[in-house]
Amino acid sequence: MTIEHIDSGDYLSKAVTHNGIAYIAGMTATDRSKDIAGQTAEVLEKIDTYLARCGTDKSKILFATIYLTNMSDKDAMNAVWIPWLGDLQRPARACVGASLASPDILLEIVVTAAI
Amino acid sequence: MTIEHIDSGDYLSKAVTHNGIAYIAGMTATDRSKDIAGQTAEVLEKIDTYLARCGTDKSKILFATIYLTNMSDKDAMNAVWIPWLGDLQRPARACVGASLASPDILLEIVVTAAI
Amino acid sequence: MTIEHIDSGDYLSKAVTHNGIAYIAGMTATDRSKDIAGQTAEVLEKIDTYLARCGTDKSKILFATIYLTNMSDKDAMNAVWIPWLGDLQRPARACVGASLASPDILLEIVVTAAI
Repeated sequence: MTIEHIDSGDYLSKAVTHNGIAYIAGMTATDRSKDIAGQTAEVLEKIDTYLARCGTDKSKILFATIYLTNMSDKDAMNAVWIPWLGDLQRPARACVGASLASPDILLEIVVTAAI
Repeated sequence: MTIEHIDSGDYLSKAVTHNGIAYIAGMTATDRSKDIAGQTAEVLEKIDTYLARCGTDKSKILFATIYLTNMSDKDAMNAVWIPWLGDLQRPARACVGASLASPDILLEIVVTAAI
Repeated sequence: MTIEHIDSGDYLSKAVTHNGIAYIAGMTATDRSKDIAGQTAEVLEKIDTYLARCGTDKSKILFATIYLTNMSDKDAMNAVWIPWLGDLQRPARACVGASLASPDILLEIVVTAAI
């Protein structure tokens, strides 16, 4: 079974596909001056991009892990997450607090999707 | 390959199945007045329920991620986890400390199981 | 589809295989007196061992989750991670801060690999 790597860099690939599953690396916002709503929107846009490069889309996300620097940002993150999913059935999900690579990174999202 | 969603709500499904795998959302106790033993028992009961709705059971769990608000609760959590598994072979597992949706939520467990 | 358990112990198996995927349990260093470089090297050695016991190797890792006690150790961890992967394509990855089973455990790594 072939493994495909997308944007393999120094220490990670942005996405890996195998046997009909896309594993997207933890995505964070590039513009860290944004608030939680802005960072969430940017992260979800990146996820859309990498899902597309894997030949799939957000309707096929199986599981999402959302790491928040401040759990108090959960509602504001959901306020962007919910309209992003629109009328789609929701993926399974876990949302937990964790420290991220830099204090101004407010969230990181990992998704696994069917292709 | 069909994706099935179980209890798709505002921002997550309680479980998603695809290609013979059940992805159960992070489960937490509803009764947050319980201590770690009580919350663990309640979470494992919910996991049993959703595994059953996916057509599988705890003997087929492949991986579990256990998030604890207080890592000092690990032994007390394991004291419920171990008899729950009984004589079954154990899943692979990671157990880490993380802040959860509310301070009185003492643990959250995510499992992936074969169907 | 057969599920195989490797070193099933009191509360976890060190690895579980199913349908061409190896789920390796969260690995930590046994010698906790080591610094982050030493603990990373030891953890990666354990991962090599369990991947081999599952009939695979690091070239087939699909996703890695790296939990660091101190996110400030990320660069020092990567300094061991990068040469370990050598010329291989990189897995997808997330690296987040979390408290681990004991304060002298500096990292824990979970990998999922194709077999």
